Formats: sequence, structure tokens, C-alpha cells
Amino acid sequence: MPETPSFRSDMTVELVKHAASDTDVLLAARVSTLGERSLDEIGKDPERSKGLINYLLRDRHGSPFEHNSMTFFVSAPIFVFREFHRHRVGWSYNEESGRYRQLAPVFYVPDEERRLVQRGRPGKYEFVSGSPEQHALVGKTLEDSYSHSYAAYQELLESGVAREVARAALPVGLYSTMYATCNARSLMHFLGLRTKDERARTPSFPQREIEMVAELMEAEWARLMPLTYEAFNANGRVAP
Amino acid sequence: MPETPSFRSDMTVELVKHAASDTDVLLAARVSTLGERSLDEIGKDPERSKGLINYLLRDRHGSPFEHNSMTFFVSAPIFVFREFHRHRVGWSYNEESGRYRQLAPVFYVPDEERRLVQRGRPGKYEFVSGSPEQHALVGKTLEDSYSHSYAAYQELLESGVAREVARAALPVGLYSTMYATCNARSLMHFLGLRTKDERARTPSFPQREIEMVAELMEAEWARLMPLTYEAFNANGRVAP
Amino acid sequence: MPETPSFRSDMTVELVKHAASDTDVLLAARVSTLGERSLDEIGKDPERSKGLINYLLRDRHGSPFEHNSMTFFVSAPIFVFREFHRHRVGWSYNEESGRYRQLAPVFYVPDEERRLVQRGRPGKYEFVSGSPEQHALVGKTLEDSYSHSYAAYQELLESGVAREVARAALPVGLYSTMYATCNARSLMHFLGLRTKDERARTPSFPQREIEMVAELMEAEWARLMPLTYEAFNANGRVAP
Amino acid sequence: MPETPSFRSDMTVELVKHAASDTDVLLAARVSTLGERSLDEIGKDPERSKGLINYLLRDRHGSPFEHNSMTFFVSAPIFVFREFHRHRVGWSYNEESGRYRQLAPVFYVPDEERRLVQRGRPGKYEFVSGSPEQHALVGKTLEDSYSHSYAAYQELLESGVAREVARAALPVGLYSTMYATCNARSLMHFLGLRTKDERARTPSFPQREIEMVAELMEAEWARLMPLTYEAFNANGRVAP
Repeated sequence: MPETPSFRSDMTVELVKHAASDTDVLLAARVSTLGERSLDEIGKDPERSKGLINYLLRDRHGSPFEHNSMTFFVSAPIFVFREFHRHRVGWSYNEESGRYRQLAPVFYVPDEERRLVQRGRPGKYEFVSGSPEQHALVGKTLEDSYSHSYAAYQELLESGVAREVARAALPVGLYSTMYATCNARSLMHFLGLRTKDERARTPSFPQREIEMVAELMEAEWARLMPLTYEAFNANGRVAP
Repeated sequence: MPETPSFRSDMTVELVKHAASDTDVLLAARVSTLGERSLDEIGKDPERSKGLINYLLRDRHGSPFEHNSMTFFVSAPIFVFREFHRHRVGWSYNEESGRYRQLAPVFYVPDEERRLVQRGRPGKYEFVSGSPEQHALVGKTLEDSYSHSYAAYQELLESGVAREVARAALPVGLYSTMYATCNARSLMHFLGLRTKDERARTPSFPQREIEMVAELMEAEWARLMPLTYEAFNANGRVAP
Repeated sequence: MPETPSFRSDMTVELVKHAASDTDVLLAARVSTLGERSLDEIGKDPERSKGLINYLLRDRHGSPFEHNSMTFFVSAPIFVFREFHRHRVGWSYNEESGRYRQLAPVFYVPDEERRLVQRGRPGKYEFVSGSPEQHALVGKTLEDSYSHSYAAYQELLESGVAREVARAALPVGLYSTMYATCNARSLMHFLGLRTKDERARTPSFPQREIEMVAELMEAEWARLMPLTYEAFNANGRVAP
Repeated sequence: MPETPSFRSDMTVELVKHAASDTDVLLAARVSTLGERSLDEIGKDPERSKGLINYLLRDRHGSPFEHNSMTFFVSAPIFVFREFHRHRVGWSYNEESGRYRQLAPVFYVPDEERRLVQRGRPGKYEFVSGSPEQHALVGKTLEDSYSHSYAAYQELLESGVAREVARAALPVGLYSTMYATCNARSLMHFLGLRTKDERARTPSFPQREIEMVAELMEAEWARLMPLTYEAFNANGRVAP
């Protein structure tokens, strides 16, 4: 176990397993309309496949987008996971446990692209760049505070106090890891709320750090299900 | 579209797609305890893998059993689907629609193994074999009734009445088809309630016809995840 | 148990229990923003209450609409319940069981306002009025078919065959009853898909019979949570 | 906003709203078996009511326990909420947001009854009392660490950095608040995993702090639904 704190500004998302393709959507929809497992003529014609998927999304036929599965390995700060785990439907989680093991001292510090200053009133916040002084202060203050917290954690562990008690000192900027499994429908719901995109029909105000995770997941998904992804964007990035 | 009714006594279950193995369970559990994607020594030792899966099931650590996916194509009578669709959590469905297409005249008639007579009081029913006369009566009465209902359906369709209106005449013994997607945890919950098995910790009283579907699904799952299946049986066939 | 079939064209919806008010939405939202159970100045000013609820719905803050509960007693044909039970999230059901009791011979026949004829192509169906001859045919054909089916059911029951076997002959036009419990968020999702309303942002194509149930539920809900109801209509009748 | 840290060892649970009684369970079960809203003779006879509820729980008829609702206001440390929010089914949450407001400096410190030392191997941990020195060390170390973290938070806020960025320094021992709504079934599932009770059929190993919250919720629920509560204990404290 490393005892020297380290600091990161990025997120980890790895697609570790999947059974997900546009064809799954077409097949499920075909059971509804044909009562058979058949792609018939539509599935063989890319334009018609695209049209069918677009129709399903537009008219909110959501269930055909559930017969698939993607498992991601994610590493991100606890404050990101706190928001992530509020997504209950169509999501499964296994997160690293601070009761079973000593947590490693890896902490989040915003990089220079992170807009640090919040303007406007609740519900309409905008973020603008911080000054160089603010960036320097954030870096130094967080690193100092993290290191101090982790030293307290270590001191308690070394005195024989249980991990689950000692961890109370650890900050929400600490990185944790998890397995997260979802389907295309639950992922679309997540992306619709946790990314800010000009194609979105309704505004969303995600915290930048969860959006960074969402963007990495989105890139993996776009590759697996390109027609569904295109239809999602064309229909206001709202889950069906 | 066939217009002559046909009669069946069996159920169809096909595993059409899956991403499900015992290794997925071990990997998810390892993220909880190690914070890493690693099987370490346990995953390489079959006995320890088996022990870990058994421990997870026994102590009700349910989430490691959710990071997998199985999609089944099922054909069964409507009265079976009516019970099936009451399983809400961890299940996705797309069923053949009687609004979009004319439903085919395929109907359920119990075979000679189906126990026809119910004895005892509510909550403690037992089923015993029917007499040859009862079997003959059930076969003849259902076939006549089904055929009469389907003729009414056809007559209405031919007169130009919408499918969704005409279908009101169709009986719950009509076969329907669906795509059903689940994970090992939701499947265990289903099997625990919809099969009757002497290894079960608590009694269950499934209708035989949904149990027939459940048994076919169980056989597919047992092949995909043998260690989890063994642990499920060893722990009273209760979902974690 | 009546043995003579009767026929209905309407649906029953009774609100049997509820803990649901606009104030619940405001209180839940205030925990998010104030960390306290307090309505503060907003809750005391009707215009600001209205504005806050509208903002929550518009920006898809869904969870404040879940801290409430409505339980309905519903009686409707089985084909309506088949569609109803596909709503899995935020819904609880207890339906009359054909395994535990003999089902009463009450059946659905469309009244004169029900448009019987479907025009157009899949996904764009429109319904137009049936001719007087079609209405007469539907009434007579369904009543005859229902009566025939119920006679088969009775014959099997009288011969000692179990209810769960005999019911296979019963049609999906048979009335069933259930308790259904939901919250405002899950009800909005249901109403958005199961009613056709000119204020809706995206089109929906519900079968008229489930829409009849939905309209009765909507009327009860509108009375309990008038500000939320108004905001739902003002924001395209889409659940947050 | 107070700027001086304060320290607590207890949890807050207030039942703010409910529509929950044993009668709701009986009524829902009666719809299943009678198809009517009627308590009939069973509901009028306390012994038979008790027997019916016990039967439902024992034979895993879970849905009758869902037609009720309880809303709790809870204040507890973030590490407790992290575990709490993993309960996805039948639970609704609204938690105080660190993006919308400055979080108050209230922190958790274990009291003298909290067993601080973990013994045994994973999956079989036992907790034993810490020494007076360990208790003193935990109190002093956590208070110092918390205060240091909060000072960093304040410094960042004062420099104009956004709340959502500055909060990264805050520890998981910080108190948060939430509204949590559940039904008797989802609450039983929670209690079965998050309390340690000698009447439990299968062992559970909750962290003491979430168990403190669970015990307070259990006390409220026991008062609202005494027959269900009794049956829960009599049947191994396992949710149906």
C-alpha cells in the first residue's frame, strides 16, 4: 500500500464487458411487431434499420433499448460516485469497500481547464475560468488538506482502529473504483442528465467531473451502437 | 397467417444472447475488496472461486451477481406471461403486440402429465392427477372454446374492426412470444418463486406452466454459471 | 358467484389512499437546497411555489416528485392490465388471482364512442368511427364469444378441474381488479405514454381502453397536486 | 452559516409523513384473493389478521407490503449515506446538495459505546471495544482532521472558488441530510441487511453507524405496522 499521496485530474473508464449492438434493438422491436426472432427486410437494409431505431427513440418505445448490457470499470473521486449512485434504475454497482481494505492515497485536483468560478443564480449557474492565483490556491490547498486527512487516517489505522472508523477522516476528493453495469436505455438517461451538449432538448447542469466520466462512457457506447447513438443525438439526447 | 388453430402443451425458451459467467461474479466482488480488476489467487483456484461465490450468496451480497446479462426468447401462453411480467426488478421485456399484428391461433392444452385437480386449502394447495375423463374433457373443452374464440376474432377482423378491439375475444391460453432480459440475481429471484424444488428453504407454489418456462431457463443458466448455480442450490434457492 | 355474464363499457378507478400534495414536492426540494425541513419564504408564496415546481419539472429534477404515494383500486379488462403492468418503476400491484378464486363473468364491450376502425400505417395509426353495423357486430360477436368461453370455464370447474387450468379459456376482455400504488413521478410517466393530449410534447398512441383508466387516475391526481399537475401540462406532459 | 466545527455521535431520524398501516397489507391481499376491497371476516379478527400477515411474509408474497409509504428526514454522516443510497428498489432520496449551498461544519465522532477494533478475517469480522487511549486518539485525531479540512474548504470559498470544487476537501464524516421515502417491503430489505439482530435467519455485518440509523427507522415503523413488524421478526427478519 503506497503511503505517499498522489494527485490526479483525470478519470478512468474502461469497457470491460459488453453484449450490446444496434441489432439487439432491432431484434427486440421485431418480436413486438412480428412475434418472431427475425430481422426481416428492415434489418438487412441499413437505411431502414436507422429509420426504425430513430422511430423507436422518437416515439418513446424504450424497452427495445434494454436488451443489452455494458460493464464499465470506473475510477473517479467519491463526490462523483455520490452523484452516480443516485441513478437507480437499470444500473448495478460494486464499489471498492473502505471496510475491507485500506484505501490508497490518490486524490483529485482540478486541472487548468476546469472552470473554477460559479456565476449566476441557482438553476442557472455558469462557470467561468479561475485566475491563475485561484488555480494555484486550489491545487495547493487541496493537496495540503488531502495529505493532512490521509495522515490522520494512517495514524488511526496504525493505532489499531478499524478501517471503517478511520475512514471518516477521508475526503470526498479521494478516488474510488467500481464496476458499473447498465443498458443503453439507462445509459441514455444518465448521459442526458450528466452531460451538457448543444444537441440536448432540455438544459442540464452536470458537475464537470461527472461529465468527464460520462463523456468517456459515451465514447465507448457510441462505438458499440452507432445507430442508436445517432438517433439519441438527433432526438434531443433524451432517453426514451 | 394460419387460420386453423393448433394446440401445444410445451413451452419455448431459447437463450439468444448472453454475457454471463462465474468469472463476472468474481471480478465484481474483487473490485469491492481489492479496488482492482483482478482475479488474484482466488480466481485461479477453482475451489476458492467456488468458496467465494458460496460466501457471497450465503451472506446476501447480491450486487456481484448483477454484472451479467441473459436474453431469452420465450413462447408461452398469455396466462404465463401475466405472471412473468409481475417481476419488475432486473427484467426487461418486449412482447409480441396484438395491436400491430394479427395473432396466430396457437393455444395451450395441458398434456397428460399436468396434474389437473387442486386439493387442500388456500396457501397449501396440492395438485393431483386428473382422471382420464377429466383429461379428455379439458382437451376437448379448451380446443372447442379456443376455436370458437378465434373464429370470433377473425370475423371481427374481416369486418374491418381494429385488431386491438377484436383481440378482446382471445383467451389467455393463446401463445404469445417475448424477449426477456435479466441478470443472475433477478433470475435467481424468479426461479426461487416460480419453481418448486426440494432444495428450497421456503416453499413456493408456482403454477405448473410458468414452472415449465422457469425450468428451461434454469437449464440454460446452469450451463453458463455452474458455480453460481451450485451455490444457489446449496443456499436454499433464495436470491441474495 | 353470478353465473350469468354481464357486459360493461366503462372502467373503475377509486383513489383509496394517498399521502400526496404539492407541499411534499416543495419540502423535498428544500432539503436539497437548504439541508432543512423548511418551506421558507417560497412555500408561503403561492406564486413562488408554482415557479419552483415548474422549474423542477422543466429541468428534470425528478426525485422531489417521488416522496408521495397514491393507491388506486382499478377494475378493467385483462388486456388493459397487460399493458398497465409493463410499467415497472415506481409501481406496485396486487391483482385478483384466478388461481385462488373463480373469476366473475364481467366482460368488456366497446360503447358507441369507441372508434373501431384503424387507419394508416404502423406507428401512425388513426382511429375512425365504425359503422352502425360494425358496432352491432362487435357487440354481438364479443358477447357471444365471451359467453361461450365462460361456459367452457364453468364446465371445467364443475368437472373438478383446477381453476388455474380452467381459466385458460377465459378471454382478455374479462374484467379483473387490482390495487395499484404509485408516486407522482411514476404516474406522470404513465400518463405521458397512456393518454393522447394536445399539450404533449411528443406523440403517444395509447389504446383507448387504457387511456380511459389513465384519464380517471389523472382526474384524481390533478385534485391532489394541482401545482404539479399544472406544471406537467405546461412542460409537455413528460415525466421529469 | 456557522464557521466553527461541531461534533456529534448520534443520528437523526424523523418520520415526517406516512400512509402505512397493517390494514393496507390486508386490503391489498384481499384484492388478490377476493377481487374486492373488503377486509371481510379476517380483517375484523385480530388473530386472523395476524395469521394472514404472517402467512404472506413466510411464503414470500411481497407485493401486499408495498401499498404504503413512509417519508423520513435523516441526518447522518456522508459515509452512512454512501451505503444507504445503494438501496435502489423502493427507495426515493433527496439529499442536501453541496453544489447549491455551503455545507455546515457538523462532523461525526464515535462515542464511547462504539467498538473501535476489528478482529477476525473478512466476512467474519467482529468488533471489540477500543482502549481508553484509542478512544481519546480517535476523538482528537478526527476532530483535528475535520477542522483542518473545513478550514481548507472555507479558504477556497472565500477566494471565490465554486462550492462544488471546494467541497472535494470535505471528509465523509461530515453530516448530510436527506428525505428518504420507502415502503414496508423496501424497509424490511434494508433492515434485514443493515441491522444485526439475533432473530435474523442469516447473518449481517452492518457498519454500526448505518445500523444506528436503521434502528431509529425500525422503531418508527414498528409503531405504524405492529403486526407486520411482529411477523418480520418471527420470520427471520428477511424481506418477502
